[in-house]
Amino acid sequence: MSIPRGKLIAIGGAEDKGTEFEKSAVYRDNLNFFELGILRRIVEEAGGNDARIEVITTASTIPYEVGENYLNAFGKIGCTDIGVIHIRNREDVLNEEYLQRISRCAGVMFSGGNQLRLTAIFGGTRFLDIIKSRYQNENFVVAGTSAGAMAMSSTMIYEGNATRAHLKGEVKITTGLGFMDQVIFDSHFEKRGRFARLAQAVSANPSCIGIGLGEDTGMLITQGNRMEAIGSGLVIIVDGHDIRYSNMADIPEGNPLSIENIKVHFCAKGNGYLVKEREFVELMGLETTPVMTDVY
Amino acid sequence: MSIPRGKLIAIGGAEDKGTEFEKSAVYRDNLNFFELGILRRIVEEAGGNDARIEVITTASTIPYEVGENYLNAFGKIGCTDIGVIHIRNREDVLNEEYLQRISRCAGVMFSGGNQLRLTAIFGGTRFLDIIKSRYQNENFVVAGTSAGAMAMSSTMIYEGNATRAHLKGEVKITTGLGFMDQVIFDSHFEKRGRFARLAQAVSANPSCIGIGLGEDTGMLITQGNRMEAIGSGLVIIVDGHDIRYSNMADIPEGNPLSIENIKVHFCAKGNGYLVKEREFVELMGLETTPVMTDVY
Repeated sequence: MSIPRGKLIAIGGAEDKGTEFEKSAVYRDNLNFFELGILRRIVEEAGGNDARIEVITTASTIPYEVGENYLNAFGKIGCTDIGVIHIRNREDVLNEEYLQRISRCAGVMFSGGNQLRLTAIFGGTRFLDIIKSRYQNENFVVAGTSAGAMAMSSTMIYEGNATRAHLKGEVKITTGLGFMDQVIFDSHFEKRGRFARLAQAVSANPSCIGIGLGEDTGMLITQGNRMEAIGSGLVIIVDGHDIRYSNMADIPEGNPLSIENIKVHFCAKGNGYLVKEREFVELMGLETTPVMTDVY
Repeated sequence: MSIPRGKLIAIGGAEDKGTEFEKSAVYRDNLNFFELGILRRIVEEAGGNDARIEVITTASTIPYEVGENYLNAFGKIGCTDIGVIHIRNREDVLNEEYLQRISRCAGVMFSGGNQLRLTAIFGGTRFLDIIKSRYQNENFVVAGTSAGAMAMSSTMIYEGNATRAHLKGEVKITTGLGFMDQVIFDSHFEKRGRFARLAQAVSANPSCIGIGLGEDTGMLITQGNRMEAIGSGLVIIVDGHDIRYSNMADIPEGNPLSIENIKVHFCAKGNGYLVKEREFVELMGLETTPVMTDVY
């Protein structure tokens, strides 16, 4: 795969799991909370307020409400050309109008929900091929939050209870949409205590770097490699390349894992990470200088 | 400090925070759950079923209920000589009968609750001096669960909301009971998603190794250094010695931390860790061979 010219923006999420919660005021507040910083960055990267962005609600079980929320949120920050695409199944995905719209827009935004809906509905379709080709060859933005972020890489976590994630087999993995290789995204990272979950995913195949996205936090990824943390929280990087002892291959399912030597980085806004080089970068692309205080 | 001859057993906890929860059936079930494996190990290390063990309920706000639970639990596994010491304040701690009892028993067990109660009530007392001296000079067992484990080291976390623990200043630290230096214990580790909390504590002073104890899981510590994981879950070791970039000293309170290069190990039953050597040990003190499966 040659170096992609587009940008990925993977965000740790507003809640959207088809539960009662996502229909609540809390959910809408969360959405409003994270839109201000991160949605603005998406819009800038896509070319500014007049850029056409298509919101894809497929992951969600309440797509119309989610779509409406994004229209309001993007509208509030001054966007003039936002569309919503409601694809519910593999028939909708053939719709010629949608194919034309994603061929023309400046970027797409995958909402939260269930990442398996994204892979099951978009996998192997022309719709996905168009987005991937535009991401590869043009300055095209592919953003995704929560499930929309988790589905971005080739290796995707689709299930795994946080409190049992230290037990072998509790973390379920399948093939994602494949905008990027060699990484595994997780979302709502600290809020849901998902460290052991991502560590298990990484220890099963240490060639992948784990990217644990906090809420209201994301990674802007350029050249398919260069990650810059954005938003108010933390991105936790889990690097398994230096793992020495691991019992992963030797124990039955349901037994606790032993793993020696996982490397972890905390990335706040402006910090970066280079995936191929496996290198933490102190400051990347930050326009303002960091707040410094002297201690005497 | 010379090498202690006693043993510490730090356990990740059954719940006991003076909340409604600890009064519920769930709490008692948890206690019953963890007693079977881990309490049995405490009893063995203290010399068997006839060993005198004093349960110290001071951390809890419902000491009589907690004491009763431990009497039942130890009784159920065949113990014949368990005592309960209810010390509620710095006057009780002077009680001559208690001083005699802790001078004679084979081991003590600090219950869960609030670790600040332990340090505020026992700090600088003869009661604590006796326990420390016996731990230092005799084959004496000091066990503690939850708050009772967190208070064991010289550096003690006493507060820190898990979902805000990536922000500087959210994790509050003070001086613990001091049975051990150079480590920081955390409890209920995965259940409450405390990875960032322990990482913050460690990054503030990387000379300390973080010991994240899962529920129904503990570390048996001999020679003040050699740790062996016991119980059904995971102990997560957080080692900050190789931290490179860290913004800890340079940002105002409330801002997110950036930290490069935290080293993490997952220890399941039988795995060990040597604190001074900072060395993960595959199998330590395990009497049975590990379950191995061949994959063809």
